[in-house]
Amino acid sequence: MTNPDQLADQVARFMLAAEGAGPAWGVEIEEAREGYARVRMKVRADMLNGHGTAHGGMIFALADTAFAYACNGRNLKSVAAHASIAFLDAAREGEVLVAEAQEAALAGRSGVYNVAVRGGDGRAVAEFQGLSRSLGAPVIETPSSPRT
Amino acid sequence: MTNPDQLADQVARFMLAAEGAGPAWGVEIEEAREGYARVRMKVRADMLNGHGTAHGGMIFALADTAFAYACNGRNLKSVAAHASIAFLDAAREGEVLVAEAQEAALAGRSGVYNVAVRGGDGRAVAEFQGLSRSLGAPVIETPSSPRT
Amino acid sequence: MTNPDQLADQVARFMLAAEGAGPAWGVEIEEAREGYARVRMKVRADMLNGHGTAHGGMIFALADTAFAYACNGRNLKSVAAHASIAFLDAAREGEVLVAEAQEAALAGRSGVYNVAVRGGDGRAVAEFQGLSRSLGAPVIETPSSPRT
Amino acid sequence: MTNPDQLADQVARFMLAAEGAGPAWGVEIEEAREGYARVRMKVRADMLNGHGTAHGGMIFALADTAFAYACNGRNLKSVAAHASIAFLDAAREGEVLVAEAQEAALAGRSGVYNVAVRGGDGRAVAEFQGLSRSLGAPVIETPSSPRT
Repeated sequence: MTNPDQLADQVARFMLAAEGAGPAWGVEIEEAREGYARVRMKVRADMLNGHGTAHGGMIFALADTAFAYACNGRNLKSVAAHASIAFLDAAREGEVLVAEAQEAALAGRSGVYNVAVRGGDGRAVAEFQGLSRSLGAPVIETPSSPRT
Repeated sequence: MTNPDQLADQVARFMLAAEGAGPAWGVEIEEAREGYARVRMKVRADMLNGHGTAHGGMIFALADTAFAYACNGRNLKSVAAHASIAFLDAAREGEVLVAEAQEAALAGRSGVYNVAVRGGDGRAVAEFQGLSRSLGAPVIETPSSPRT
Repeated sequence: MTNPDQLADQVARFMLAAEGAGPAWGVEIEEAREGYARVRMKVRADMLNGHGTAHGGMIFALADTAFAYACNGRNLKSVAAHASIAFLDAAREGEVLVAEAQEAALAGRSGVYNVAVRGGDGRAVAEFQGLSRSLGAPVIETPSSPRT
Repeated sequence: MTNPDQLADQVARFMLAAEGAGPAWGVEIEEAREGYARVRMKVRADMLNGHGTAHGGMIFALADTAFAYACNGRNLKSVAAHASIAFLDAAREGEVLVAEAQEAALAGRSGVYNVAVRGGDGRAVAEFQGLSRSLGAPVIETPSSPRT
């Protein structure tokens, strides 16, 4: 039988394998469990802005990826309704960024997740907060998922 | 002599040419003038999430790109301090998204920009609001830029 | 027969009269029409923070009020799902603040509204963006509202 | 000698006593320590919206108050640059709301704080994220504050 942490890990790995974006960005899952996901990505030359540092869009994309894995982790297909991000420091080419998503609240079909993005030295690069809405369907078919 | 709209256009094109991200994403500038920028991007297979629609990170990245060109357009190097995005509808592979950034307010070194992201049929895909902070240096050297 | 702008005005005035908060804050409606609302409020001593300027909570409250009147203006009862605010300048005791809400996008039951808060001299005090969700019921009973 | 937690508590109580808003709203400090503040407020009739539940502006105001005490708690005068809030559930008249602010990141003069607002039964009412900027001056004069 699958416990909630194992299920969340399966869902995250299924999602990464099924998507075009995460693999294209070189995203790797460090840990995924119930209400939590931590992913990493190396900043490449094709991810830099005109100032020569990591594009805000890629910092957001990494945080959003951690958010997606965390909010789908109960195997309830969920989408982002809103997200906000504070940019705290620049990240340079070659640096490995880590985004750590933690569930803050659940209410009905809504969930809120806080995501910290840190640089290779542990410094704060960005803080993100995402609002998800579940769609009432499973992400992956499992013995415990709703039959539809 | 360069007028404000021409300067904004020059800055946007300089930024796109200087960055790794925009060209890698296939971003094209449709129009850039003072306090305004409109860019487009075609949703590719490597930009999809696990649900098979455009990854929120890429929708954000496009909006953030329009925001960057708009807030740097007075040739004052500016960075994003914060951004928020509401996701309103999914976008599919092959669809051309357009992001239109409009300056809403300026106060000291801060600026606020509203960005609408629309699908190929004009429907609302996302709404974004960004807060910029200028760093007090020019983006490109021009006859009218501060000598440093 | 009531046109859309008149309906929006009726809804806004009905809401202000029915609520405890707006009258307690001294909020006045300057204009309300379809997809738009503009309200004003004088900053009082009981609205100041510890730095002696208008409390961010009250600046938000004024913006949120304009947002509420704008997003309910089609006589579809709507609530805020999310809101974000950038604080650009302080406001002082006695100053009359004006918040102007403009609809940016509609998609299904969701709406996005941009709200500018300005001081008595027209300077930017805050920029706000709100995401609403309609509940499928009317705010006020009119000949054209759904019978329930 | 004052330890960091005692200093944060002194700053919070000083701020509440010095402001017009918190006392007018009936805000009480439950706990304040370094990087953390928890406050409470009872929802009154003059805090209700047109739907008869707590006005979003007041829910925000309470969260913003906890944020203010947390981000000033090192006795470095700080102001809000940005804040965002997800509204998760309604609150009714007479209910005591608790807002709990926790520091998420510090970087230079910027700080990010996550604030949970909960109802009397512990359910999630709202989640808030605030971005602060310190101004480089003390809030209260103490033996250890910078002499200016």
